[in-house]
Amino acid sequence: MTNSSSERPGEFELIAKLFAPLSAKSAGAYGLTDDAATFQPPAGEDIVVTADLLTAGIHFRAEDPPGLIAKKALRVNLSDLAAKGAAPAGYLLSLALPRHWTLPWMRSFADGLHEDQDAFSVVLFGGDTTSTTGPLTIAVTALGTLPSGTMMRRNGAKIGDSVFVSGTIGDAGAGLAVLNGEHASIAAGDRKTLTSRYQLPTPRLALGKALRGTATASLDVSDGLLADLGHIAETSKVRIVVEADRIPLSGAWKEFGAPLLSAVTAGDDYEIAFTVPSAKRHEVLQLAHRAGAVITEIGRVETGSGVALLDSSGGEIPVSRKGYRHF
Amino acid sequence: MTNSSSERPGEFELIAKLFAPLSAKSAGAYGLTDDAATFQPPAGEDIVVTADLLTAGIHFRAEDPPGLIAKKALRVNLSDLAAKGAAPAGYLLSLALPRHWTLPWMRSFADGLHEDQDAFSVVLFGGDTTSTTGPLTIAVTALGTLPSGTMMRRNGAKIGDSVFVSGTIGDAGAGLAVLNGEHASIAAGDRKTLTSRYQLPTPRLALGKALRGTATASLDVSDGLLADLGHIAETSKVRIVVEADRIPLSGAWKEFGAPLLSAVTAGDDYEIAFTVPSAKRHEVLQLAHRAGAVITEIGRVETGSGVALLDSSGGEIPVSRKGYRHF
Repeated sequence: MTNSSSERPGEFELIAKLFAPLSAKSAGAYGLTDDAATFQPPAGEDIVVTADLLTAGIHFRAEDPPGLIAKKALRVNLSDLAAKGAAPAGYLLSLALPRHWTLPWMRSFADGLHEDQDAFSVVLFGGDTTSTTGPLTIAVTALGTLPSGTMMRRNGAKIGDSVFVSGTIGDAGAGLAVLNGEHASIAAGDRKTLTSRYQLPTPRLALGKALRGTATASLDVSDGLLADLGHIAETSKVRIVVEADRIPLSGAWKEFGAPLLSAVTAGDDYEIAFTVPSAKRHEVLQLAHRAGAVITEIGRVETGSGVALLDSSGGEIPVSRKGYRHF
Repeated sequence: MTNSSSERPGEFELIAKLFAPLSAKSAGAYGLTDDAATFQPPAGEDIVVTADLLTAGIHFRAEDPPGLIAKKALRVNLSDLAAKGAAPAGYLLSLALPRHWTLPWMRSFADGLHEDQDAFSVVLFGGDTTSTTGPLTIAVTALGTLPSGTMMRRNGAKIGDSVFVSGTIGDAGAGLAVLNGEHASIAAGDRKTLTSRYQLPTPRLALGKALRGTATASLDVSDGLLADLGHIAETSKVRIVVEADRIPLSGAWKEFGAPLLSAVTAGDDYEIAFTVPSAKRHEVLQLAHRAGAVITEIGRVETGSGVALLDSSGGEIPVSRKGYRHF
């Protein structure tokens, strides 16, 4: 991975060679040759905009494959759009590069973006490239669109609603533990399943779109299932009760063999947690099925505040830390 | 500046206390209680979007006053909108905070943003807050609007056009040198003038708007006057000739007493450099005057490529490095 600086392109060459091709399908990105991009939402649509910043050592491991780092940076932003019901349109990418970056590393990083742009129908609108004395830092702003006024908020959960979550929970947290050398005895297939979930989350875009008009509240699970349901509870001014036995867990996670609490507080799942009126419990299962997504009913919305995790006898399981916090 | 961690708010409290008030004037920011914001451009307008990332030790000094750091991060983005002719609407702010941050520091940072939001009619749409083991890193994405199709590009300069620049050039570069302890003998007033220009650039928003429909090419001077004119020359496929004697220099810069080449290559000026048809040379002076801006004609557009700096006898002054490069 060493490379003399003379073999590396300069800032402007880097943009022209590796990043400009990523903007090719957007007329308003001007091949990244200008200070800004232009964009217009379709008539009758709102723009939905979200930003996430990822730092080596916190959101990904510096030694992770560059294509996977790039994809994760893009996907965690697309996951926010998915949970809001928006269709992704494009993104801006700002990179602070440590001084030891190499051209092959950057090429793999750009290739990863290229693959995901095709997979998720997004284009690069612009960004910035600078150096840093610190770890690799990746700031992405994603833009999506949806019919005006239809964004699924966090604050609409109603007493009596059912609480659902997509996919399985806890895999990414277990995957990070595996990458960090824990549970070295786990089978190769399970190891791969869990680490992939950490390194390559899947934004649930089709599901999010299908939930528009049906879900009363929605967000993506990034901090930890209980912490994120806490955000819905707080903004909706309700209490959310989750039944521990109903948490969807993968076979690989069960082989990993961690306590359930680690699954519901680890974060990085990038599944969608949402509430629907109880009368639509069956309808939403059909909607999800048609969107190619698996969802599980895990609880209900009650009067009160906060989030409670209940055991099979209905007793509340004490939870000291509901999710990841940066400080 | 020390502070026990128990006195510091957590991630979510920080957002609620210091950043949510900055979003109050935007209905689509939802008080920063959601994953994303919604935004609609006025009918018949394009959204203009730009991103800049600033790192302590490169774009600002870590010891600079936090309010000024915040303002600079916002203003360098507004400067891009200005040069494109866009009216600013809002911005997203992603922060990677070193572990030693304190509440008073963050409060001053937010206060700086608040003041500039009022000054420039922008609101906070959203963002992200994380920790980093490296230097403070600030990623801003700014959104503006303008009538569809009127964005001033870099690529429209025509043979025979006149080249203009706003304000004075080189002050910020001299200001950084002063902050770094060079030219300690400079008078206090001049010192203040130059350092302010480094720490607190002024986005030329009124000028940018006034130039819409008149300037053939436009950008903001961030890398260095000659380097940025080089971007216009390259995308417009022309040669730009600048007369050294015409470069607008402040009294403070002259007192500082550096070679002219440092002024035209230092960068961080955040003035607008633009081209206009020669027939509009006088008209554009009036437009700028009405916008409260001072502009100076510094050169012309010719056939060929690249940028040339000419001395008073018309000879080309050799320039080895035309502007700042991160790598």
